[in-house]
Amino acid sequence: MPEDLRNRVDRQPTVAGLSESDLLARIFPRLRMAGSHTASTLLGPGDDAAIVAAPDGRAVVSIDTQVQDQDFRLLWPNGYRTTGFDVGWKAAAQNLSDINAMGATATSMVVSLTLPVDTPVSWVEDLADGLRAGIQALGATGCSVAGGDLGRGREISVTVAVLGSLDGGRAVLRSGARPGDILALAGTVGHAAAGLALLESGIAADTLGPAERIYPELQCRPRPPLWAGPAARAAGATAMLDISDGLLRDGHRLAAASNVAVDLDPARLAHLAELLRPAATLLDADPAPWVLAGGEDHGLLATFPAGIQLPPGFTAIGSVHALGTDEGPGVLIAGRAADTGGWDHFAH
Amino acid sequence: MPEDLRNRVDRQPTVAGLSESDLLARIFPRLRMAGSHTASTLLGPGDDAAIVAAPDGRAVVSIDTQVQDQDFRLLWPNGYRTTGFDVGWKAAAQNLSDINAMGATATSMVVSLTLPVDTPVSWVEDLADGLRAGIQALGATGCSVAGGDLGRGREISVTVAVLGSLDGGRAVLRSGARPGDILALAGTVGHAAAGLALLESGIAADTLGPAERIYPELQCRPRPPLWAGPAARAAGATAMLDISDGLLRDGHRLAAASNVAVDLDPARLAHLAELLRPAATLLDADPAPWVLAGGEDHGLLATFPAGIQLPPGFTAIGSVHALGTDEGPGVLIAGRAADTGGWDHFAH
Repeated sequence: MPEDLRNRVDRQPTVAGLSESDLLARIFPRLRMAGSHTASTLLGPGDDAAIVAAPDGRAVVSIDTQVQDQDFRLLWPNGYRTTGFDVGWKAAAQNLSDINAMGATATSMVVSLTLPVDTPVSWVEDLADGLRAGIQALGATGCSVAGGDLGRGREISVTVAVLGSLDGGRAVLRSGARPGDILALAGTVGHAAAGLALLESGIAADTLGPAERIYPELQCRPRPPLWAGPAARAAGATAMLDISDGLLRDGHRLAAASNVAVDLDPARLAHLAELLRPAATLLDADPAPWVLAGGEDHGLLATFPAGIQLPPGFTAIGSVHALGTDEGPGVLIAGRAADTGGWDHFAH
Repeated sequence: MPEDLRNRVDRQPTVAGLSESDLLARIFPRLRMAGSHTASTLLGPGDDAAIVAAPDGRAVVSIDTQVQDQDFRLLWPNGYRTTGFDVGWKAAAQNLSDINAMGATATSMVVSLTLPVDTPVSWVEDLADGLRAGIQALGATGCSVAGGDLGRGREISVTVAVLGSLDGGRAVLRSGARPGDILALAGTVGHAAAGLALLESGIAADTLGPAERIYPELQCRPRPPLWAGPAARAAGATAMLDISDGLLRDGHRLAAASNVAVDLDPARLAHLAELLRPAATLLDADPAPWVLAGGEDHGLLATFPAGIQLPPGFTAIGSVHALGTDEGPGVLIAGRAADTGGWDHFAH
């Protein structure tokens, strides 16, 4: 654990003083949800495995890890301290987004926590609170934490595996986009990237105004549009994925899987950039790279057959083209090749 | 990464030179399985989530993480170097065991890898090979790796979430043991602990004879009896769990969940200790603590109604008693309280 957090918490009880079962006993009551959230969990924590309902005979499944100093910093340059609540919320949000991007709804999560021995117990309790609050606030009705695992390590690491249900319907894959389709967006892009820039700036967190504060808040506690995935599927979306690594990079993935070109409308990109103006002004920065390469908002990028009405919350931002001779799949802006960009865990 | 591994691999390509998608392209072909192994995977790697069959409308799910220097050492005091293959195999085995312990069979895994940038690509390829080989060699027919996630960290960490099917049957929980039941064991206990002692000894790995080598081999590549879980369920097992933290500790868990006492037969314990004699002799050690507190063999501890024939591979090692007045649930040896022990991730 970095010095700054250690100093701050020196007098707090740490996980070193608790057995695994003691610590689980502190966490699981905080993950307990009421009512419809637990409907899918047939057997919850406490045995070798959990049992989750998969009503249509299929389970959608995804896994994602957040690591300290890679996916979050405990202390940011602008003075903001990442809370356990933030990390729990973000772990929930990222994983719920993967289920959303298939057009499915989440039914349960299992969570594996790796903790340095000097992690304050209160930080871990906050993480459990953040997981629960994220699931609830994002509207993942029917989803709860069905089980988990705890272990030691030198850095904090949180892995969530999430299960979802397609409720008897088809999944919306990345590979179904067809020439002539409309390219549409639900949720935001670039907000988390603008937030990252603010967190990494010299501008003190507590001097941010309400219009600027939304960006770091979305970096720390993303709000994927969980209503949009099932709605897109119902409306006939042909392809979909969540924008976790940037519009260009994720757009390229969709294009490559579908063997098409996706062409972004510059007027729509300019509008998306305008939404980032307060952060751009404060930092004297160009918001365009945030729009094109900023990940972690977990908006949905989807394609729909031309002529259908887009589901509420989706906005057209471009179109799908057939590949010309010698043209590879990729992202265009107003018909011209755009460079791929965005976040990559290894090569940057 | 520790100095020793870094020095050894300085000239090998590391993951730092590869993008996430490049590295995934190196890994996934190695995880590809033939025939019946893939039957449950309806949609494999490459989209936001995978889709796995859950034929009876339920998914059994568990998650488990292995962290470098906690769950394995890259270089052991006796000179043995943990391979990526070992880590992959062990990750598969531990998770398959949790499904086995419910009386279920595994259908799929999703894997999240956290890797320091200086991890050799070949080490990661070995890990993929070990995952696949473990699944196949342990007989987890019907199970394959359906998806995964990659990220950076300061230490190697491997998280597997595994899904399983109960095929329309009941799950065998920890809580079903009844007074009068037989307590039985399938698989081994203490071998992995004896192996750990050998790995931590000054006895060079390459001087071990074939009778001694089996212990570190089982520590590094455990062999949970995957045939035993579904067989126990079919035979009417009343309670079951896998022995991952030691016979006393896991026996206590079963006793506590069932609100009974489990009484171990000292003659059977002596027999189990005898199986550890080659390692005990070499180390001049008492094998009894390995039997009582050694985890990670992932044998199954199960209870069966008296009078039924135990399924093949199960051996009676004790019995289940009702609690006396003022007696708490726990483990007895020949009717006298045994101390709980075994591995605990935080308090030792």
